[in-house]
Amino acid sequence: MPERIPVVEKILSANDRLALENRAKIDAAGLFSINIMASPGAGKTSLIEQTVRALGKKYRIGMINGDILTSLDADRAAAAGAVAVQINTGGDCHLDAVMLHSALNQLDLNNLDLLIIENVGNLICPAEFRLGTHKNVIVASIPEGDDKPHKYPSMYRGADVLILNKIDLLPYVPFRMDFFRQGVEVLNPGVTQLNLSCSSGEGLAAWYTWLESNLTLKNG
Amino acid sequence: MPERIPVVEKILSANDRLALENRAKIDAAGLFSINIMASPGAGKTSLIEQTVRALGKKYRIGMINGDILTSLDADRAAAAGAVAVQINTGGDCHLDAVMLHSALNQLDLNNLDLLIIENVGNLICPAEFRLGTHKNVIVASIPEGDDKPHKYPSMYRGADVLILNKIDLLPYVPFRMDFFRQGVEVLNPGVTQLNLSCSSGEGLAAWYTWLESNLTLKNG
Repeated sequence: MPERIPVVEKILSANDRLALENRAKIDAAGLFSINIMASPGAGKTSLIEQTVRALGKKYRIGMINGDILTSLDADRAAAAGAVAVQINTGGDCHLDAVMLHSALNQLDLNNLDLLIIENVGNLICPAEFRLGTHKNVIVASIPEGDDKPHKYPSMYRGADVLILNKIDLLPYVPFRMDFFRQGVEVLNPGVTQLNLSCSSGEGLAAWYTWLESNLTLKNG
Repeated sequence: MPERIPVVEKILSANDRLALENRAKIDAAGLFSINIMASPGAGKTSLIEQTVRALGKKYRIGMINGDILTSLDADRAAAAGAVAVQINTGGDCHLDAVMLHSALNQLDLNNLDLLIIENVGNLICPAEFRLGTHKNVIVASIPEGDDKPHKYPSMYRGADVLILNKIDLLPYVPFRMDFFRQGVEVLNPGVTQLNLSCSSGEGLAAWYTWLESNLTLKNG
């Protein structure tokens, strides 16, 4: 069906155009922004909660959460101290630049240092839609299994930093770290991987360092 | 954009029409068929491996696996003793009736008792596309978290049986069984839930019983 291709291209370029507008808006406010993507239950919200608790006194953090229906995740981020905005996609499997564009209008960007976007829990569709953020953060987790980079290439290819969460569960589930990293290397050679546990706290310091070094570059 | 609605309806009804054709083909061969859906890493493939090992001597089992790119899961099912066919969706986030239609042609349906479809790992998109199978099986897992039915309603609403996998990890992660079930009940009152662990084997017998009672109804 060759007729379909131009339509798809048109939709994508409209999204990309709006992503550029989002970026301009974020840059004008001097913010550093990240788009966190993961499978359902990998620990995006827990990571955001921990981050807001650890850095929320030093930096003003805004959080935009994309979910199909509920505001459970935005509520958790807000309880931890972030300024949180909820986007309900109404069934859509990803956030796109249009949704982010309207959400940005609900935040006082000039009064923020860091903007965290929590995408819809999905390892496929969110990878196809640029939002306009500075960095893509992928959260993988030990119980998901070591084959995920091999099976969800687009997501891993687009990562600027890769978090491997729930390492406290390593003693209880089979996980070949070499096989996991091998899959990552093929798609995204040399990408920074941070092994951590939002539950035990192990390894979180390196994540805060990564985040702060980017915040300093952007704001300082 | 009211113009978009008829197009979506047209695509869906074309899919549903083909799903009916798939069902007729499966019924003509006297097979019982299930469509297994889950988040990435919930344990679809492990469940299929265990099932093929436990029931593969008594029943002839065919397996069709949907994946974006690899054949890792089909390879595992084949190694366990199933007749396995791989569908690579080439980036698509779900299986649809068209894909299943071509895959069915690659199996000798008359020489099978049970057909297992393993859908793409995704809690959103697969729920929208009927394939023509008899029952939908949803696999959830303990480390994914107890909020998933609340957050992914379409998937849970369409389940004929709900498997809660990885119960061996209950001592190591927080999981409120009441909150999980409460979310399920709102969407799908009374749906059978089977708590089990593909890793320890606990609870698998009840799953085999469910499967065999359906196989008997269909074939016996």
